[in-house]
Amino acid sequence: MSINVLFAAKAERWVTYEPTLQQAFGELGLDVNLRTEIPPEDVDYIVYAPNSDLQDFTPYARTKAVLGLWAGVEDVVGNQTLTQPFARMVDEGLTRGMVEWVTGHVLRHHLGMDMHILGQDGQWRDHVPPLATDRSVTVLGMGALGQACAEALSFLGFTVTGWSRSPKDIAGVTCLSGDDRLSEALSGAQIIVLLLPSTPDTENTLNAETLALLEPGATVINPGRGPLIDDDALLEALNSGQVGHATLDVFRVEPLPPTHPYWSHPNVTVTPHIASETRPLSASRVIAENVRRGEAGEDFINLVDRKLGY
Amino acid sequence: MSINVLFAAKAERWVTYEPTLQQAFGELGLDVNLRTEIPPEDVDYIVYAPNSDLQDFTPYARTKAVLGLWAGVEDVVGNQTLTQPFARMVDEGLTRGMVEWVTGHVLRHHLGMDMHILGQDGQWRDHVPPLATDRSVTVLGMGALGQACAEALSFLGFTVTGWSRSPKDIAGVTCLSGDDRLSEALSGAQIIVLLLPSTPDTENTLNAETLALLEPGATVINPGRGPLIDDDALLEALNSGQVGHATLDVFRVEPLPPTHPYWSHPNVTVTPHIASETRPLSASRVIAENVRRGEAGEDFINLVDRKLGY
Repeated sequence: MSINVLFAAKAERWVTYEPTLQQAFGELGLDVNLRTEIPPEDVDYIVYAPNSDLQDFTPYARTKAVLGLWAGVEDVVGNQTLTQPFARMVDEGLTRGMVEWVTGHVLRHHLGMDMHILGQDGQWRDHVPPLATDRSVTVLGMGALGQACAEALSFLGFTVTGWSRSPKDIAGVTCLSGDDRLSEALSGAQIIVLLLPSTPDTENTLNAETLALLEPGATVINPGRGPLIDDDALLEALNSGQVGHATLDVFRVEPLPPTHPYWSHPNVTVTPHIASETRPLSASRVIAENVRRGEAGEDFINLVDRKLGY
Repeated sequence: MSINVLFAAKAERWVTYEPTLQQAFGELGLDVNLRTEIPPEDVDYIVYAPNSDLQDFTPYARTKAVLGLWAGVEDVVGNQTLTQPFARMVDEGLTRGMVEWVTGHVLRHHLGMDMHILGQDGQWRDHVPPLATDRSVTVLGMGALGQACAEALSFLGFTVTGWSRSPKDIAGVTCLSGDDRLSEALSGAQIIVLLLPSTPDTENTLNAETLALLEPGATVINPGRGPLIDDDALLEALNSGQVGHATLDVFRVEPLPPTHPYWSHPNVTVTPHIASETRPLSASRVIAENVRRGEAGEDFINLVDRKLGY
């Protein structure tokens, strides 16, 4: 008997994902009936994007798991009707893309590239940057993405500190954990990368008080979530010079409105939420693997702990 | 008895290197008499920069080795009076700095960063780059610098091809060698990094014919040597779009004259010969190690093969 998988996401996603999901199910030998409409009582699994029309999970009584297409889960965990096991997307392509974006922008600021990209005026600016080993980078958030970024930066020679809620142990990275070590992780950091999940606890992690701990002129890089930053405090720190540059990929409102002061600030680079983008084929394989596990009675991977909110 | 080491370089270098050389000799327990002037017949070793006043090595009959401060040797190998063993500088700090610069600029072009750095106009440019694994990078020159760069790019996931005169075998890198494989190494490359030595054989390695082999819109990155590129051919390829962007750190004449067309070309980034810079302490340790080897009767490291010219 076919496995009934409901695809609940925007219509344009269906165009992208229908062929890659079919391919991924086929690779695992799963007989799947993949549809955008299935009577709720017949649905075995739901492939889910939080901005889909499906918000009430109550009728899906036999559904074994809701398999998210997104890495971020803050729009889902508050949904009281979602009582089924819920897996977030942990896509290798997404992780690799994040590592490339983070590593690229850390190196850009480390090397002082903008001076040359913006200053092609015939003047030979003979500035030699320090080596990466003399540059301290702190990564806040040591989940799959944060760990991968910290490891890549360590490989390139940076002096890397990672901070997370729960203890971690990563070769080449100074790992700190718990609220009482956050200020230690931030103190004197020259480049800070935000990869925390968005939860009530992490809102405004970067605020006037914590920004003051960074090395004067520090670089703030946020490919994580918009609410991690108190925007007014960051703008003030940019104006005072406490923060030398901010490269921001995520915002409380997206697209960032054209009138937002970040766009016009000379020391801010806005990028349009491109640091991590799920890649359809590798993401489809993650979903197919969870369907296989569900049918085989094995544990699902990437389950969200709704108490922690990630 | 003290070992007499003559420091033959510009006066400003002496200020930088005198303390770090003393430290490095001390670390190895060497009793060294380090001076900027020693009678030629008493000199055991010469620490040498090619732009020093010392050009005639004939009187230095007892000198056991000339220890270069520079990685490039093209200004030395033609000197017929230099018959002593001659070691070039292979400095870990220089290698690391080169890896950082090359990796940073490859990622910059890969990610399309300039679009955002130069385009902070309120427009949400939702362009997602491919993953590094779908980006082909070719490194010409697989010496110490080229190998280290190829390995770092491979670690980050790029599809890397390395080309060199003699065969190499590097994990994760497609290694091609010999003149007859050069066009294979260049064909379809999206990003090309030049790290060949400057010799009569390598002059104008990138010319009209070889530039035409690259993928249309390719990126050229030259942290190696100015003469590796036929500048007129590169400008023509930039104007036709065959080359999308060139980031150049080295030039036939440095500083690059303010009127040079590279400065004003919209698709060229000039950087002022900063990709690799010898770091005094690590460089001093390399020199001290060679003095130690000479005194112990061991083989010198980093000897230049004057027939090959590098």
